[in-house]
Amino acid sequence: MDLALAEAEAAAARGEVPVGAAVIDAAGRVLARAGNRVEELADPGAHAEMLAIREACRALGSPRLVDCDLYVTLEPCPMCAQAISLARIRRLYWGADDPKGGGTVNGARIFAAASCHHRPELYGGFGAERAARLLTDFFKARR
Amino acid sequence: MDLALAEAEAAAARGEVPVGAAVIDAAGRVLARAGNRVEELADPGAHAEMLAIREACRALGSPRLVDCDLYVTLEPCPMCAQAISLARIRRLYWGADDPKGGGTVNGARIFAAASCHHRPELYGGFGAERAARLLTDFFKARR
Repeated sequence: MDLALAEAEAAAARGEVPVGAAVIDAAGRVLARAGNRVEELADPGAHAEMLAIREACRALGSPRLVDCDLYVTLEPCPMCAQAISLARIRRLYWGADDPKGGGTVNGARIFAAASCHHRPELYGGFGAERAARLLTDFFKARR
Repeated sequence: MDLALAEAEAAAARGEVPVGAAVIDAAGRVLARAGNRVEELADPGAHAEMLAIREACRALGSPRLVDCDLYVTLEPCPMCAQAISLARIRRLYWGADDPKGGGTVNGARIFAAASCHHRPELYGGFGAERAARLLTDFFKARR
């Protein structure tokens, strides 16, 4: 989660909503790390999780990340949660919950849908305070 | 929808699940067209809608596709439905419903969540028969 938090800090420095993610394989190797780049890439899909999954898949040459875990500083939105399911991520660790935009334990609760074909193990609250403070400071500075 | 169906046919020819999409602006210009490339790109996020949205955003230089419409041959999954919401798509037209993997009128029903910030106008059933036949033929040939 420290890697993900560092990516979130780097995103904030670029003027992006500070969210960071990392994908780790079963041996503990870091396959990918990424921060949010929605504004830079002008891509609404360029959330940290999406970029990290894409990079990890490229590293493995497969659209499936079997036995890999994803760390992200904020509860994934429905788009990212579904991508995590499609990628067959084993364990999902996240920092702060996101009642407004989350789709994991809030909102559309992607993994709770009967038609969800793969559910990772879910672990929330990792480094939540630091992750939430990054977001609060970012939006405070923009107001 | 003819453009989206042509993209779906091209996807099938590449060995990809045949789904195609196109983004049209308010003046009727085609901003982007794309077919599914999950296997080719080894990217679980490379659904037709995601690729078309990314390309259209690049064309406009903005992560928001205000006043643009998206045509897709199959009901969007939850990932794509959320990306459509994030991109502020005005109208969503789709072909066949997808009770197993859809997230628009099936499954997680992304646009029905109270926390969904932008809902496009929804129009299903456009070219549904041709879209569904493409999928049926594809999976039949693979068995």
